[in-house]
Amino acid sequence: MNIEEIIKAEIRNIPDFPKPGIQFKDITPILQKPQLTRKITEAIRESVKDIEIDVVAGIEARGFLFGMLIAEALEVPFVPVRKKGKLPAKVVSHEYSLEYGTDIIEMHADAFKPGSRVLIHDDLLATGGTASAAAQLVEKMGGSVAAFSFLVSLNFLNGAQNIDRFSKNILTLAAY
Amino acid sequence: MNIEEIIKAEIRNIPDFPKPGIQFKDITPILQKPQLTRKITEAIRESVKDIEIDVVAGIEARGFLFGMLIAEALEVPFVPVRKKGKLPAKVVSHEYSLEYGTDIIEMHADAFKPGSRVLIHDDLLATGGTASAAAQLVEKMGGSVAAFSFLVSLNFLNGAQNIDRFSKNILTLAAY
Repeated sequence: MNIEEIIKAEIRNIPDFPKPGIQFKDITPILQKPQLTRKITEAIRESVKDIEIDVVAGIEARGFLFGMLIAEALEVPFVPVRKKGKLPAKVVSHEYSLEYGTDIIEMHADAFKPGSRVLIHDDLLATGGTASAAAQLVEKMGGSVAAFSFLVSLNFLNGAQNIDRFSKNILTLAAY
Repeated sequence: MNIEEIIKAEIRNIPDFPKPGIQFKDITPILQKPQLTRKITEAIRESVKDIEIDVVAGIEARGFLFGMLIAEALEVPFVPVRKKGKLPAKVVSHEYSLEYGTDIIEMHADAFKPGSRVLIHDDLLATGGTASAAAQLVEKMGGSVAAFSFLVSLNFLNGAQNIDRFSKNILTLAAY
């Protein structure tokens, strides 16, 4: 099996989570297998090897999991992207629209130097709303989006269309 | 400098966060230094080398950061401990008291086999309320707490007293 097949074999479909009609892709079974988490980290490192990356930004909370492993594999800093009010020092905020209402994400104002090339990581690409917001936050802080990396993409939701204006490098290991 | 001094040199004190009178210890500057995160992971691995550990449980959200690195270094599964309603599959819950009101943490019901020896990891030990709740959740699920590991302990809050009935192995890299 290739890495996509291995990941898909581990992912658990949870019907009607977090709300009726949604088939949630649960990645926690992957975390049960340290050899697989290492293989995934290595696959992501390999897939970005020709891209200059200065920092990995991981989106709270599941983006912290592989985000830290990727940052360590690339030997670059890790920066948390968090929901409003969670980061203690001075932050830059970005408000964005959800299906109903709005949400706010933040990074520490000194998270990276202007001009930094940022890899934005999350476990899952769905509609791309949060990933797009993270990209706008990176640009607001003077950085550029070198790439996006996801373990899983739900291609039928066309999330990549919402983020490809920030970077053509949208990397995913398992697509549905 | 030893590892405790190195960590303390990086930690940022944030006055009055999350509320007036609290000096918050911000660990995010550590994440900026991949060589240091590797050194910390190695120090934790070394400090638990004589303890049998079957699984690492990391407490949402900052416990995910080094939790994943520790699990990978020990080559054991990683299990997320999350706030109510965040985990998609069948969960076991534990409600516990806070200064004002209560909170609920959860783990997936199949997160580990009964009898498993669990390392509970979080970035910071303060009063020990959440760590104690995580330990009770582990025991409710038929596991035992092999050890606790923290990057930072605020010893003046006596958190270790609230968790030493679960395990005498309370490991911390930097104590205040």
